[in-house]
Amino acid sequence: MSRVEVEKKVLNENQILAEQLRERYRQQRILCVNLVSSPGSGKTLLLEKTLERMDKGARVALLTGDLQTENDAKRLAKFGFPVKQIVTGGTCHLDAKMVERHLADWNLEDLDLLVVENVGNLVCPSSYDLGEDAKIVLLSTTEGEDKPLKYPSMFFKAELMVLTKIDLLPYVPFSAELAKENARRVHPGMEILEVSSTTGEGLEAWMDWLRKRQQQKSEKVLTELRG
Amino acid sequence: MSRVEVEKKVLNENQILAEQLRERYRQQRILCVNLVSSPGSGKTLLLEKTLERMDKGARVALLTGDLQTENDAKRLAKFGFPVKQIVTGGTCHLDAKMVERHLADWNLEDLDLLVVENVGNLVCPSSYDLGEDAKIVLLSTTEGEDKPLKYPSMFFKAELMVLTKIDLLPYVPFSAELAKENARRVHPGMEILEVSSTTGEGLEAWMDWLRKRQQQKSEKVLTELRG
Repeated sequence: MSRVEVEKKVLNENQILAEQLRERYRQQRILCVNLVSSPGSGKTLLLEKTLERMDKGARVALLTGDLQTENDAKRLAKFGFPVKQIVTGGTCHLDAKMVERHLADWNLEDLDLLVVENVGNLVCPSSYDLGEDAKIVLLSTTEGEDKPLKYPSMFFKAELMVLTKIDLLPYVPFSAELAKENARRVHPGMEILEVSSTTGEGLEAWMDWLRKRQQQKSEKVLTELRG
Repeated sequence: MSRVEVEKKVLNENQILAEQLRERYRQQRILCVNLVSSPGSGKTLLLEKTLERMDKGARVALLTGDLQTENDAKRLAKFGFPVKQIVTGGTCHLDAKMVERHLADWNLEDLDLLVVENVGNLVCPSSYDLGEDAKIVLLSTTEGEDKPLKYPSMFFKAELMVLTKIDLLPYVPFSAELAKENARRVHPGMEILEVSSTTGEGLEAWMDWLRKRQQQKSEKVLTELRG
């Protein structure tokens, strides 16, 4: 079997498992989002600020992936919501099997929102469906405006781009307009939010996006069930 | 053949080719460095500043890798040294075959230094030997101090870490001391330089490092040849 064939087989197996996860989320009307970005774009900090703003009774859980360390799970666990670290041990992306295994002892009936924080990598996670409703790509203002053009697959597959670290705009040679233009060149009509987890700017719009997306999903499923 | 076996075979084939490249560099006493980092850590800007500071007659050439676009080659070509873009078309790393193919019409006798700028990815490029003398990993002050712990393979394999964007230290919650401590936890004794390509701070030490490393390599080869 050639390398390409093996790769295809692995991706097909992943796809089957991802569809099973998607169906489980659908039955429970859970919104699952898959956060992807370069290392250090601010995924974990954005999630800390997100959990801080959640109602105490919010039905949210998080899976956070890294090659090594439990650092992110520790950072996220302090808000009292269920969190698990997925340590890939060197693998450059999460796959559906890892997600399924880490969900095993959670009761999905208790959730409305499942957030998966992928390994920091703008390339490989774009090939692995985790059964999510939406990929969300973060791009920070310190990374350069050309990243959507250089990593088009990720920006094409993501439903939303969150431009992070906008508090640093005065100190970096970065045009938010050009970055957004580049994102929409590879993904016309892409939704884009701008946030600073440090100052809090844009966080309300981000919370609204999550809330509305979850409602939308829930209503869609209910309509299908009635249909 | 299982996926692991195929992966091993691909890596073995890469290793054979990498050793051939290494031997060619040795014969010509060329220093080859392989720059790796997250997307947007400042590899290309550091190389622009490096070329700007080179003597006009410097015997240097560059290969720069990206999934898509010729942007980086265009940025680097304006200094008058030979530059080629390697477009991987989606592949998350450079391999030895890509390097060999792009070197084909260059005369290695004309070079003292070959710089390879890898795809922006802190994971996959660590597995692919390009025949380089040294991997150099860049970490920018906007990425967080924990990256060496989360991506240990890359920091373990790199001879030198260049901490970039130190001009942003006043504006980001980043401890350079902790980042260096973390790098040396995964790679004891690792060499570390701190630079700002924007203000120029640290660039002389970086140029010195390259110069000395090239001399060292050249003298080592001459000693072996005399031996």
